[in-house]
Amino acid sequence: MNKPHDQLALILADDMAAVNDLIKLRMASKNAPRIPEVTAHLVDAGGKRLRPMLTLAAAHMCGNTTPYHIHLAATVEFIHTATLLHDDVVDESTQRRGRPTANLLWDNQSSVLVGDYLFSRSFQLMVETGNLRVLDILANASATIAEGEVLQLTVAQNLSTSEDTYLKVVRGKTAALFEAACKVGGVIANADEKITDALAAYGDALGISFQIADDLLDYGGASNAMGKNIGDDFRERKMSLPLIKALAKADDTEMAFWKRTIEKGQQEDGDLKHALTLMAKHNALDDTRSDAIHWANKAKGALALLPDSDIRDILLALPDYVVSRAH
Amino acid sequence: MNKPHDQLALILADDMAAVNDLIKLRMASKNAPRIPEVTAHLVDAGGKRLRPMLTLAAAHMCGNTTPYHIHLAATVEFIHTATLLHDDVVDESTQRRGRPTANLLWDNQSSVLVGDYLFSRSFQLMVETGNLRVLDILANASATIAEGEVLQLTVAQNLSTSEDTYLKVVRGKTAALFEAACKVGGVIANADEKITDALAAYGDALGISFQIADDLLDYGGASNAMGKNIGDDFRERKMSLPLIKALAKADDTEMAFWKRTIEKGQQEDGDLKHALTLMAKHNALDDTRSDAIHWANKAKGALALLPDSDIRDILLALPDYVVSRAH
Repeated sequence: MNKPHDQLALILADDMAAVNDLIKLRMASKNAPRIPEVTAHLVDAGGKRLRPMLTLAAAHMCGNTTPYHIHLAATVEFIHTATLLHDDVVDESTQRRGRPTANLLWDNQSSVLVGDYLFSRSFQLMVETGNLRVLDILANASATIAEGEVLQLTVAQNLSTSEDTYLKVVRGKTAALFEAACKVGGVIANADEKITDALAAYGDALGISFQIADDLLDYGGASNAMGKNIGDDFRERKMSLPLIKALAKADDTEMAFWKRTIEKGQQEDGDLKHALTLMAKHNALDDTRSDAIHWANKAKGALALLPDSDIRDILLALPDYVVSRAH
Repeated sequence: MNKPHDQLALILADDMAAVNDLIKLRMASKNAPRIPEVTAHLVDAGGKRLRPMLTLAAAHMCGNTTPYHIHLAATVEFIHTATLLHDDVVDESTQRRGRPTANLLWDNQSSVLVGDYLFSRSFQLMVETGNLRVLDILANASATIAEGEVLQLTVAQNLSTSEDTYLKVVRGKTAALFEAACKVGGVIANADEKITDALAAYGDALGISFQIADDLLDYGGASNAMGKNIGDDFRERKMSLPLIKALAKADDTEMAFWKRTIEKGQQEDGDLKHALTLMAKHNALDDTRSDAIHWANKAKGALALLPDSDIRDILLALPDYVVSRAH
C-alpha cells in the first residue's frame, strides 16, 4: 500500500499542480534575480509538501467552494520555506533535503533576506483571500512559530529543560503551522467552528507526534527515511525528548556524562553508544515512542467529527504512519 | 525653531504615548523572555519614531475617526525594528543608534528570530484593524522592502550599478515603508483615493530624499547628526549615490582607484581623502544634493491636495530639513 502522503498527493494531484504553479509564479522577483534562484533551490529539492496538502485536504473535507484553498496552500508552503531558510542560518546547517543549504551555496545574508521576502509573499497571498479569520489564524501561527524558535534557542544545551518547555518549543517550531494549515482549510470552506477547531486539534497533535517521531528516529531509527544520520541530535546537543527523559532518571555519574557531552559539548568516540545505553536503561526511547503514539491517537480522535470520506481515511492513517517511521 | 520631527512629536504626543504603550505590550512574550530583552534594547535606544509619526500625521490630516491609527503606527514601527535587526545581521554591524547592536550583544540567531517575531507581531496588529486595503498596502510594502534588501546585497561592490538600480534599492530599503506609513494613515481615516495616493507619493519622495541625504552626509556632512562617521560607506564599500555619480565620470586612472578600493576592498591611508577629491572634481556631492532637493520638492508638491493644517505645515517643512542635515 502507498504511504498516506503519497495517497494524498494522488487524490489532490490537480490542486497540488495549481499550488505548485502559484508557488513558481509568486516566488519570482523582477528586480532581484537572487530571490527565485535561492527559492528554487529549496522548492525544487521537493520535500513532501505535507503542509499545503493538509490545507487542501481540510478544505475538501469541508466541501470547499472557493478557489482560495490553493492560495492558502501556497501561503503555508511559503511560510514553511521561509522558516527553513532562517532555521538553516540559525543552526548553521549545511544539508537540507539531501542538498547543500542555501546559506552554504550563497550566504547567510541571502537566506535571511530571501526568507523575509517569502514571508512577505505569503502575507500577500493570504490577504488576497479577503478572509479576516484566515489572516488572524495565520498571523497568530507566525508569531507562535517565531516564539517557539527563540525559546528553542534560549534552552539549547540547558539540561534542566522540562517536558513542558519541550512541548512549547515543538508547538512553536512544528505544530503551529500544521495546526494553522488544517484550520484555514476548514475556515476558507466556511465550516462550523466546531469543525475548524477539530481540524486545528488534528494539526496540532499530528505536528507534535511528527516532531517526537523525528526526535526518536534520530536516536533509534533502523532505516532512516528522513535522510538524517543517527546521532545528529546528540552531536548538535539538541534538547530532544529522548534526552530529556533520560536526564530525568539520571544518577550523578550519568549526569556528569550528559554535562560533559551535551552542556559542554566535549564529545569523544563511543559517547553516542554510551548515550544510547543510558537511554535504553531508562526506557527513554520506549517512553518517547509512547508519547508519539499518544499524540497520534489524539490526532485521529480529533477527526471523529468530520464526515466519512476517502481523504478523511488517509488523514486517519497519517499519524500512525508518522509514528511507524520511528519503529 | 524646533526641528520638524520634534514639532510632530509635540503635536502628536498623546497618540505617540499610546503607540509606545502598545509597542511595549506587544513586544512581550510569555514563553521566550529573550524576545522583549532584544526588542527593548533597540526600542529603548529611541530613534526618532519618524515612521509611526507619519502614520498618525496622515490619519489626523484626513480627519481620523477610528482608534486603529495607533495600531498601524505600532505596526509600522515593528516592521522597521524587524528590518533593523535583520539589516544588522546582514551588514555585520556592531553599532546602531550609538549602542552595540543586538547581533553583537546576543548573537545573529537571536536577531534573525526576534526580527521574525516582530514581523509576525506587526502582522497581528494590522489584522486587528480589520481593514483589507491596509493589509494589502502593508503586505506589498513588506515584499518591496525585502526585494530591495536582496537587490542591494546582489549589487554590493558592483561598480556598474546604475542610478536606476540605486533608486530601486532605495525605494525598497527606505521609501517603501515611508510610503506605506503615510498611505495607511489616510486609508484608515477613510480618505479618498486621490488623497491616499498623494500621501503615498509624499512618503515615497520623502523616503528617497531621506536616503540620498544620508548618503551625502556620509561623504560630506560637517556636523553629523546621524551618529555616522564620515567615510563609513566608503569603508563598507557601499554603492551610494555620490560614488555612482563619481564613477559615471571616472577616467581610466580613476576607475582603477575605485576598482581597488571598492570592488576589491584594498584600502590604504589617504584613500578616503582621494575619493573625496575625485567626487569634488566631478561635482558628485553637489549633484547628489540636487537630487535630494528634487525629491524633497516632489514630496512637498504631493501635499498640495491636503487641506491646510498645523500638521501639514510641519510635513511641508520636513523634506527641506531632511536635506539640510546634509549641508
